[in-house]
Amino acid sequence: MIKVVLLGAGNVAYHLAKAFQESSNIDFVQHFRRNRAKDADFDSNISKTDRLNTLAKADIYVIAINDDAISSFSKQLDLDHGLVVHTSGSMPLNALKCKANKGVFYPLQTFSVTKNINFKEVPIAIETEDEKDFELLEQFARSLSHIVYEINSEQREKLHIAAVFANNFSNQMFKIAKDICDEYAISFDLLKPIIKETVGKLETLNPKQAQTGPAKRNDRKVIEKHLSQLSGEQKEIYALISASITRTFKN
Amino acid sequence: MIKVVLLGAGNVAYHLAKAFQESSNIDFVQHFRRNRAKDADFDSNISKTDRLNTLAKADIYVIAINDDAISSFSKQLDLDHGLVVHTSGSMPLNALKCKANKGVFYPLQTFSVTKNINFKEVPIAIETEDEKDFELLEQFARSLSHIVYEINSEQREKLHIAAVFANNFSNQMFKIAKDICDEYAISFDLLKPIIKETVGKLETLNPKQAQTGPAKRNDRKVIEKHLSQLSGEQKEIYALISASITRTFKN
Repeated sequence: MIKVVLLGAGNVAYHLAKAFQESSNIDFVQHFRRNRAKDADFDSNISKTDRLNTLAKADIYVIAINDDAISSFSKQLDLDHGLVVHTSGSMPLNALKCKANKGVFYPLQTFSVTKNINFKEVPIAIETEDEKDFELLEQFARSLSHIVYEINSEQREKLHIAAVFANNFSNQMFKIAKDICDEYAISFDLLKPIIKETVGKLETLNPKQAQTGPAKRNDRKVIEKHLSQLSGEQKEIYALISASITRTFKN
Repeated sequence: MIKVVLLGAGNVAYHLAKAFQESSNIDFVQHFRRNRAKDADFDSNISKTDRLNTLAKADIYVIAINDDAISSFSKQLDLDHGLVVHTSGSMPLNALKCKANKGVFYPLQTFSVTKNINFKEVPIAIETEDEKDFELLEQFARSLSHIVYEINSEQREKLHIAAVFANNFSNQMFKIAKDICDEYAISFDLLKPIIKETVGKLETLNPKQAQTGPAKRNDRKVIEKHLSQLSGEQKEIYALISASITRTFKN
């Protein structure tokens, strides 16, 4: 059993806490959270603390807090044992400023408290300073997920940018689509099958091969007609992404 | 049995031809296609023609050709019977210029010849000039799909714009994410679970509720760090969509 202490109380901590409890190879010994207002979100059977000088002894300390707070928070960790990892996609390993050994455990998924996740299917990108720690962290990650990759700090930063496009930005396209539907009393449900298929195609085609529509065909008539019916931010986005698609197929 | 003649040889015609053959309520009597080069894509058991003056008698004539060609092509249809429908999301009903009764049969899906579709799950937006035709077209549509909506020409045009955002533009976000992965030797497979989850969330949350990430939190540090690593089109898109997301959560 790998002993773990979790530090944090946000969306990522919430899903990690659940995954730790569900794994038979992990002993979830303590949960540090400063924000006691969130206590109701978490299992009360797990020992909890809000003081860093009462941290339990563990093999791995997982910091799941805001990116900005990682450095200053980790400075306060007075540990002479164990491996301290953060869970951020955009922070390098050396953002950790504690004396203990350091690593990164980045679960590449979009976490909302209100939506359950099968953690076994969440890709985990891991990195450590030394090889022995890597073995421990890999064993830990494999106790939680089937999909574990070694990714260094530079790659992880790029991966995080790619994930912002793949997740946050595609989701904003869905949001704008829903705004348009709402404005004209059209059910957003009409679009759900095409959204599912857009993603379903990626199992057999890459995104470029899967592309269709007026911008791919550089169908100026349809593009101009659509632009004439949009305004403000929607129009700007339509023009920019259409141009990007058209360029994709020019080359 | 509703007798149908299909006119066209593109992606939409390809999937319609398959769906017509699979439906037990539809008698697929003839397939008109000018482009004989594509004959190999279609079932040779269906009677075919490339001359409009040899069109078979049918209840419904489905025109699945490029938007631009619909008006001029429909003018050449010398029919004194039946219902002529086009399949375009962006063209109004009166783009049809034939003497016969007119309607629209718009299957809201992204069609690639290389990817099979379960047509039963494709939403069909239908419209006719008169009520009697509507009954026929609705019966026809329900023979092909479980999901049939009455949508007028104005709504359909907006729906098509919404579909461009939901499908083509979200897919371009995946394409850019893959470009970034490729550049840094990261497997695009790492992103597939987050992409699936982005769409999976829409079953229980609307896109605004499902949003996460640096732009939602207006995390300027991460946003600026990402922007500093991007250039050209990718940078422009990152800035514009991030601002759109941040604005979504300001209001």
